[in-house]
Amino acid sequence: MERVAVLGAGSWGTTFAKVLADAGTDVVLWARRPEVADAIDGSRVNADYLPGVVLPENLSATSDAGKALAGAQAVVLAVPSQTLRGNLTAWRDRLPADATLVSLAKGVELGTLKRMSEVIREVASVPEDRVAVVSGPNLAKEIAAGQPTATVIACTDHDRAVDLQHACSTPYFRPYTNVDVVGCELGGACKNVIALACGMAAGLGFGDNTVASIITRGLAETARLGEELGADPLTFAGLAGLGDLVATCASPLSRNRTFGERLGRGDTLAQAQEAAHGQVAEGVKSCSSIRELAERLGVDMPITEGVHRVCHEGLDPRVLTAALLGRERKAERE
Amino acid sequence: MERVAVLGAGSWGTTFAKVLADAGTDVVLWARRPEVADAIDGSRVNADYLPGVVLPENLSATSDAGKALAGAQAVVLAVPSQTLRGNLTAWRDRLPADATLVSLAKGVELGTLKRMSEVIREVASVPEDRVAVVSGPNLAKEIAAGQPTATVIACTDHDRAVDLQHACSTPYFRPYTNVDVVGCELGGACKNVIALACGMAAGLGFGDNTVASIITRGLAETARLGEELGADPLTFAGLAGLGDLVATCASPLSRNRTFGERLGRGDTLAQAQEAAHGQVAEGVKSCSSIRELAERLGVDMPITEGVHRVCHEGLDPRVLTAALLGRERKAERE
Repeated sequence: MERVAVLGAGSWGTTFAKVLADAGTDVVLWARRPEVADAIDGSRVNADYLPGVVLPENLSATSDAGKALAGAQAVVLAVPSQTLRGNLTAWRDRLPADATLVSLAKGVELGTLKRMSEVIREVASVPEDRVAVVSGPNLAKEIAAGQPTATVIACTDHDRAVDLQHACSTPYFRPYTNVDVVGCELGGACKNVIALACGMAAGLGFGDNTVASIITRGLAETARLGEELGADPLTFAGLAGLGDLVATCASPLSRNRTFGERLGRGDTLAQAQEAAHGQVAEGVKSCSSIRELAERLGVDMPITEGVHRVCHEGLDPRVLTAALLGRERKAERE
Repeated sequence: MERVAVLGAGSWGTTFAKVLADAGTDVVLWARRPEVADAIDGSRVNADYLPGVVLPENLSATSDAGKALAGAQAVVLAVPSQTLRGNLTAWRDRLPADATLVSLAKGVELGTLKRMSEVIREVASVPEDRVAVVSGPNLAKEIAAGQPTATVIACTDHDRAVDLQHACSTPYFRPYTNVDVVGCELGGACKNVIALACGMAAGLGFGDNTVASIITRGLAETARLGEELGADPLTFAGLAGLGDLVATCASPLSRNRTFGERLGRGDTLAQAQEAAHGQVAEGVKSCSSIRELAERLGVDMPITEGVHRVCHEGLDPRVLTAALLGRERKAERE
């Protein structure tokens, strides 16, 4: 793999583009705003989303998606999950034939309740073996700083996963392959919701025992949903499940955790959004679609349900946390 | 259950005694030093191990083990894992007939490679259904402050577990029962070693991605050992596995994590021990016995092996962390 297009110049898209370039792969990074693309090409820095990180010379930027896509052997989709369908619809006629379509987006689409790989297959009219997802304990800022980490590249076509693995292996970024696309995607989508719940508990003044209990129960409800959708239960014990969940829930660098903390301290959704420079955390949207998916499949997801009610129905986060810890149970797996 | 003896007045023993008393159970707490027992009875505070926490009136203290044991329906053993055998040998003739023996100790005995419940059965000559263990995301200081948490009480005799559950249920402390004693004990023992590794990585300046990767792989190697010893793999995904591991590895309140951080910053074992008021973290001893157990059973535990080599063979922690992240692998579960 010699040339890859990364569509979306937010912090994770820019970081993953840097990883690919550091691994020796030529990268064209698409930014929506021409001034961002120009700044990256000029100063080699994405000051808005990855300040202070110098990007390699074999990474160029453009705001012309057609230019980014021309000749790409893989197309990395690094736009927010709820806008992926719209973006990809605009790009689909220019996707190179046989390119691997790679999702960095983590969520479940509102309305359709589809995972990102399903949205990609539908919009781009490609079979499932052309779609890969990247997921793991991957806080962008740490990777951009060259901190060592591991990740998972999942694709039902093992050869495509291996090609992509080679295209992004560096001494600080170690990708493992996996064929369980469903499990990796769900791990990535649900962790944002669990991180909101952990943030709420921390914002209310609860300590590490409480946060650890929420992480444990959160992974259990994610695995329940995953099994219902055909995921391999072992995926949730791996880097794209537990690993990603712990990194997201424990880190002050996590947007969802930080957003939840504000809600826990009493901020309204609007106030928390304002503090996050107008951005709503991914889990605020995903909690509703994941909850609806769970309801449709008859899966019990009390944390996701609670987060949805705090974010969208005005429930006091104190009620959520008390309810989670106060559920009447006798045996651990009863 | 109306009367319980708690033997050992360290921070976890004192905290668990408080939980029992808050649940309405009369407790006699044994302290090795008479002045500690006198201070608790006089001022209702254990200033050395739980400063600032007022203990309930239905908790009394003594340095006479015979007095503590007389009439107790459950005996809670809250002494360090490597001294449990010696202590229990001194107490065994005064253990009330049919009392449930409850282990709070987390470790594997050096030399014999026995779990704490095995040591208890052997020394007290009791069948396995009389021994219970308590394990979960239970940072003592948070529980003593009334922060809500959950825990697991494991006993092969479900009725004994339920009796104990009722004796220690409070609005802030929610115990779940489980019959998998082996899994709960191993989760508790191995997490101290993994927390040392996380501390080392943090001390070396690595971030949350790295720590999350170590937690993920650490739980995997714990589960491998557990399966070999007959534990239920699901236990490791629960409160006594993942929950306890995350709380211990993420919290600045964890002695093992803090101890590992000092080693990561370049302290020798002796320097780290001095900084910890002369105490060696539990995992420093357990890493050697767990490693030996794994070797005997042919189980691959690279993190435990690395922690042992750093603590006892002078390996530079930088080599450990680099080796953990640099292992050559292709597929996640290969």
